[in-house]
Amino acid sequence: MTLPAPRPDLPPPQRRPGGRTARIRTQVLDAVLAELGERGYDGLTVELVAARAGVHRATVYRRWGDVGGLLADALDAAGDDAWHPPDTGSLEGDLAALNHEIQDALTAQPPIVPALIAASFRSEQAEQAQRRLWEDRYARCESIVSRAAQRGELPPDTDARRLLVTATAPLYHQLVLLWTPPDPFLPDHAARTAALAASAGAFAGHPRAESEPRPPT
Amino acid sequence: MTLPAPRPDLPPPQRRPGGRTARIRTQVLDAVLAELGERGYDGLTVELVAARAGVHRATVYRRWGDVGGLLADALDAAGDDAWHPPDTGSLEGDLAALNHEIQDALTAQPPIVPALIAASFRSEQAEQAQRRLWEDRYARCESIVSRAAQRGELPPDTDARRLLVTATAPLYHQLVLLWTPPDPFLPDHAARTAALAASAGAFAGHPRAESEPRPPT
Repeated sequence: MTLPAPRPDLPPPQRRPGGRTARIRTQVLDAVLAELGERGYDGLTVELVAARAGVHRATVYRRWGDVGGLLADALDAAGDDAWHPPDTGSLEGDLAALNHEIQDALTAQPPIVPALIAASFRSEQAEQAQRRLWEDRYARCESIVSRAAQRGELPPDTDARRLLVTATAPLYHQLVLLWTPPDPFLPDHAARTAALAASAGAFAGHPRAESEPRPPT
Repeated sequence: MTLPAPRPDLPPPQRRPGGRTARIRTQVLDAVLAELGERGYDGLTVELVAARAGVHRATVYRRWGDVGGLLADALDAAGDDAWHPPDTGSLEGDLAALNHEIQDALTAQPPIVPALIAASFRSEQAEQAQRRLWEDRYARCESIVSRAAQRGELPPDTDARRLLVTATAPLYHQLVLLWTPPDPFLPDHAARTAALAASAGAFAGHPRAESEPRPPT
């Protein structure tokens, strides 16, 4: 789901309180994202991150091990925020606002989010951290579906995860797999499509493959 | 869309006729896919490909330049086939059969298709070739939508590309971005969702963002 898209060229606006250890972590992880945005995964090294962060590289090696460890911690830190999904008052509106956030994150410069996605193909640690982050983001987004069910827009047994994947997958598909230029209509259209399918009952109950034997009645 | 999933451990079943140049291309591109499946993009080198193909590496450098050129040609060759989308007699059936092909290709061992997708994050030549391949596959799949329109299942102005992306994107999203294990229900369910949304008019006509000014009437 959406990842934060920090602007490495601007000073970070605020810092969580913490001692020296927390401060070093912040400096190092900011440097990871900035290096990743500028150089991509292939240009990311512990040495460059340490230099940019103003931290001795031995400290980085000791605490993070390697580039995979740095990326995994950057992804874990990205999930440690107060982000919550948009609340516009309707299912379609919430999904559209969410999709606009995703499209913005995927097309922001420097391209940090695509670089993190690319890294998940290369580093098992990064892949696992990304999976954790996405799992957490989709879990937070389930409130979109529960609110819609409370408003009577959806049946109460709606499969939230499938609905959310249906609404958001076309954005990622177009922008980081098909590599097509951003389509300004796509965020709204993918939201409307998922909302229409939901109204037609596509996500009600547990899906069953056509070929699965049904229990005897 | 689906890419062929060759089995590098088996002898290729048939060869297009051709002279020495065509034969060398076949040997080299088979070696590219085999190496990619075994080692991934990071382990792919011109030297290993040349050795596996039994071709002098100078020949490979001269003709393909580098790993990016090899991958691009392998992707172009993958599109030079007679593949056509399933024809089951219904929109939902066609989309489900297509999705099963995609899920099989994305989960086949060795993981050649995910490795090709990963390569598109790393090499601009591979990215462009993958875009060409996908464009061609989606264009071929438009027959699924035109047949459904002829049968009266869909309005004639259905946006085929959006429908096809909606039907197929969740497969790629789950398997190569979220890295979740294959869900045996997903191919059928994503097909049903897209077919339901299509019946509800989600892909009729050109989508229009809510904010776009409408022409005066």
